Amino acid sequence: MSHYDLVVLGAGSGNALLDDRFSHLNVALVSEGPFGGTCLNAGCIPSKMLSVTAEVADSVRESDRHDVAARLEGIAWPRVQERVFDRLDANSRDGEQGRRASGWVTVLRGRARFTGERELEVRTERGTERVTADRVVVAAGGRPVVPPVIADAGVPYETSDTVMRLDEVPARMVVLGGGYIAAELAHVFHSAGTAVTVVEQQDTLLGPQDESVARAFTEIVGAQWDLRLGREVTGVEQSTEAEADASGTLRVTLDDGARIDTDLLLVVAGRRPNSDVLDLDRAGISVDEDGLIEVDAQLRTSAPGVWALGDITDGGPHLKHVANRQAAVVAHNLLHPEKPRTMSYDVVPSAVFTRPQIAQVGRTEQEARDSGPDFVTGTRRYDGVAYGWALEDEQGFCKVLLDRASGRVIGAHILGTQAATLIQPLVVAMTAGMSARELAESPLWIHPALTEVVENALREALGQLEEGADGDG
Amino acid sequence: MSHYDLVVLGAGSGNALLDDRFSHLNVALVSEGPFGGTCLNAGCIPSKMLSVTAEVADSVRESDRHDVAARLEGIAWPRVQERVFDRLDANSRDGEQGRRASGWVTVLRGRARFTGERELEVRTERGTERVTADRVVVAAGGRPVVPPVIADAGVPYETSDTVMRLDEVPARMVVLGGGYIAAELAHVFHSAGTAVTVVEQQDTLLGPQDESVARAFTEIVGAQWDLRLGREVTGVEQSTEAEADASGTLRVTLDDGARIDTDLLLVVAGRRPNSDVLDLDRAGISVDEDGLIEVDAQLRTSAPGVWALGDITDGGPHLKHVANRQAAVVAHNLLHPEKPRTMSYDVVPSAVFTRPQIAQVGRTEQEARDSGPDFVTGTRRYDGVAYGWALEDEQGFCKVLLDRASGRVIGAHILGTQAATLIQPLVVAMTAGMSARELAESPLWIHPALTEVVENALREALGQLEEGADGDG
Repeated sequence: MSHYDLVVLGAGSGNALLDDRFSHLNVALVSEGPFGGTCLNAGCIPSKMLSVTAEVADSVRESDRHDVAARLEGIAWPRVQERVFDRLDANSRDGEQGRRASGWVTVLRGRARFTGERELEVRTERGTERVTADRVVVAAGGRPVVPPVIADAGVPYETSDTVMRLDEVPARMVVLGGGYIAAELAHVFHSAGTAVTVVEQQDTLLGPQDESVARAFTEIVGAQWDLRLGREVTGVEQSTEAEADASGTLRVTLDDGARIDTDLLLVVAGRRPNSDVLDLDRAGISVDEDGLIEVDAQLRTSAPGVWALGDITDGGPHLKHVANRQAAVVAHNLLHPEKPRTMSYDVVPSAVFTRPQIAQVGRTEQEARDSGPDFVTGTRRYDGVAYGWALEDEQGFCKVLLDRASGRVIGAHILGTQAATLIQPLVVAMTAGMSARELAESPLWIHPALTEVVENALREALGQLEEGADGDG
Repeated sequence: MSHYDLVVLGAGSGNALLDDRFSHLNVALVSEGPFGGTCLNAGCIPSKMLSVTAEVADSVRESDRHDVAARLEGIAWPRVQERVFDRLDANSRDGEQGRRASGWVTVLRGRARFTGERELEVRTERGTERVTADRVVVAAGGRPVVPPVIADAGVPYETSDTVMRLDEVPARMVVLGGGYIAAELAHVFHSAGTAVTVVEQQDTLLGPQDESVARAFTEIVGAQWDLRLGREVTGVEQSTEAEADASGTLRVTLDDGARIDTDLLLVVAGRRPNSDVLDLDRAGISVDEDGLIEVDAQLRTSAPGVWALGDITDGGPHLKHVANRQAAVVAHNLLHPEKPRTMSYDVVPSAVFTRPQIAQVGRTEQEARDSGPDFVTGTRRYDGVAYGWALEDEQGFCKVLLDRASGRVIGAHILGTQAATLIQPLVVAMTAGMSARELAESPLWIHPALTEVVENALREALGQLEEGADGDG
């Protein structure tokens, strides 16, 4: 039985909170998975490295649009694998070695479960270690969900945990799911040469996005991927050897009776928190009906001395930049309990690194409509600004929603090149409580930079506001 | 003699100020050049359309960095010409036709000169028209400077006014000048296959940029272009027919005795205001020693009832987004003289659309050092953030300067992909008077978007601030 001042469960965002300010403490870091967590090893970072690679290939394919004659010979997938994962795996190993060499962090690699309040059992390679702690931070993340129709079928399948490390690119792939992870991976494999079929229960991909974005994205990728919308998988079976030679190794059946022969099934049907393997009840840590650890704004759990953050909690969207901010808040609260900080989820941006790229912050138009505030929208298409002409972009747009009463931006949605960068001035303004007019008219916006699409969407919406005001007056 | 309520000289930013709020007036728009001015016809917009085209070709050339196998066959220059200038010329014609059809704007195409206070003579195709006005706006722009050594040599040369419309790409080009226009055009032609030699008096290209940016840019393009730094052209002569066949049509001599045979000479040695052809003295409009019309913060000239804006004035940097803002201020001041607005040039961003791209706002490090405020810097390289890994970008960086006393950003400099977009959150924060800490720590920054390079440069600088504060305390 070892006692620690602080035990952190999880080597992703949990590990990130441990900086030198904690070096006077005796700390244990417990993790079953590799250092860097989902983000570094199987999430945001490798998917973006693959996404940019795919974009380079896409750009060659579409170079004729800019009157550039070029021929694509292909993505050298094994070299991509080496480039991406040699870097990331080294990064993960370095992270672990750095901790082990720190002198104040004990690293326990293995599966942990609670045996009591701030009391754990960790099954490591060297046996089971029992651990107690004054304070505990639970940041054990989540994992892909595999629906029973797949899990029970006894067929091989991939998830986001495994598919990015495939040795070779399959000729055909069925993607089960149409959310942002599914879309990012479909884009990568389509670009690498895979014929992609996406099966999604809803009528559009990226359902939670603003309706204009979800519709436009679905239409654009519908020309590239075989979309089966409003459909469910009802069965999967492994082909016989003879069938496999002729038509692939798996046969996927949909609820409309369609049968899709494919080489690979990628299951991206959501994620669930890793709370179910931790025996949280023994520690007095409450979870909600989805298994998410309940945290307050200070990121305290129901158990005294236990904090939680990241994808295992019900605190805000499950995004790495949210978890990073939570880690900073928890670190502060551990060090300065007399003056705790709190999290706010009022303005949380996110991006989807597909082609076209997508970024959003705040409310969607359908949410704004449902919650009923009096709002106006303004949309500017990329081909309505000079840099959009330069990009020959006929798809992209920026849409903003302004609250009529306050004149503030309550939502912004961008589909197109550099969307994840373009959203940031809107994030800054919304966080600072700046009015849409101040954002549009006070700073200069470089001409002709792509940022003009944001400026002009704001001006468009402000024009709507004024018209409304004239009408009222 | 026709009398107008308002005469605007210039069909670029001057034309932009005329919206429906002026439709109750009798307005004349006088311009020698085409509608849209320098920006649309020979400046920001075509250069960006060519720059993005060049980037597409560059991306193919460098695709191996992303393990994408592709072969560049070339830029189809005649098709680029058609695509870019068919669009822009149509745009210019539409602009003119729209004005002519307006019913309240009389368009006078021809050279104008003042003959008295708010009294002009315009030489049009149909003869000379004499015009008087209650109020006048001078927005007649500028033009490239051609140094005597070239102008007097009687050799053919191109300027930024002409070079973008060349029928074919020259095999070799000497660019005289190392400023941002020279750099953008050198990038375009280098990418299109021209062997580019740049002759610049200073020791780096882009001298007015932050020293870190100018140095890095010079080093990067020095591997692609033949740079003759610290050098001046002392002579140019046309080759004899026999020489021309063997070695090009022009021979350029430098002050170190070097002789460069070339097919084309591009002169990009600065711009000057078109004030010298307007007989401004007759109108009582004062100019400074550089020939720039002197304007106050309301953009009034020394002559009552005469405003000026854009590249012909001494009001702020000669950038299209500055001129656009000035046009908005002048429009307001014409309509609401009782409540005039003023221009501020405290926070003026700008970008250079080369590869790598460059953007800046506020003070350079050398300016900050010279003016002596107590400041710290923070720099984050693109390869220090995850999206930079994805881009395989080993050159890019973001550098910020913070004022130690106020904790505000006083300068920011970005070299790399998307620089012109990445700068905008900094512009917004600086304009709003937000502290660097608020900008870094209050909004969320999407992980792993490229914006993290800005966030982390700020955090780096904030760390420096704290160290300083610790040292003092």
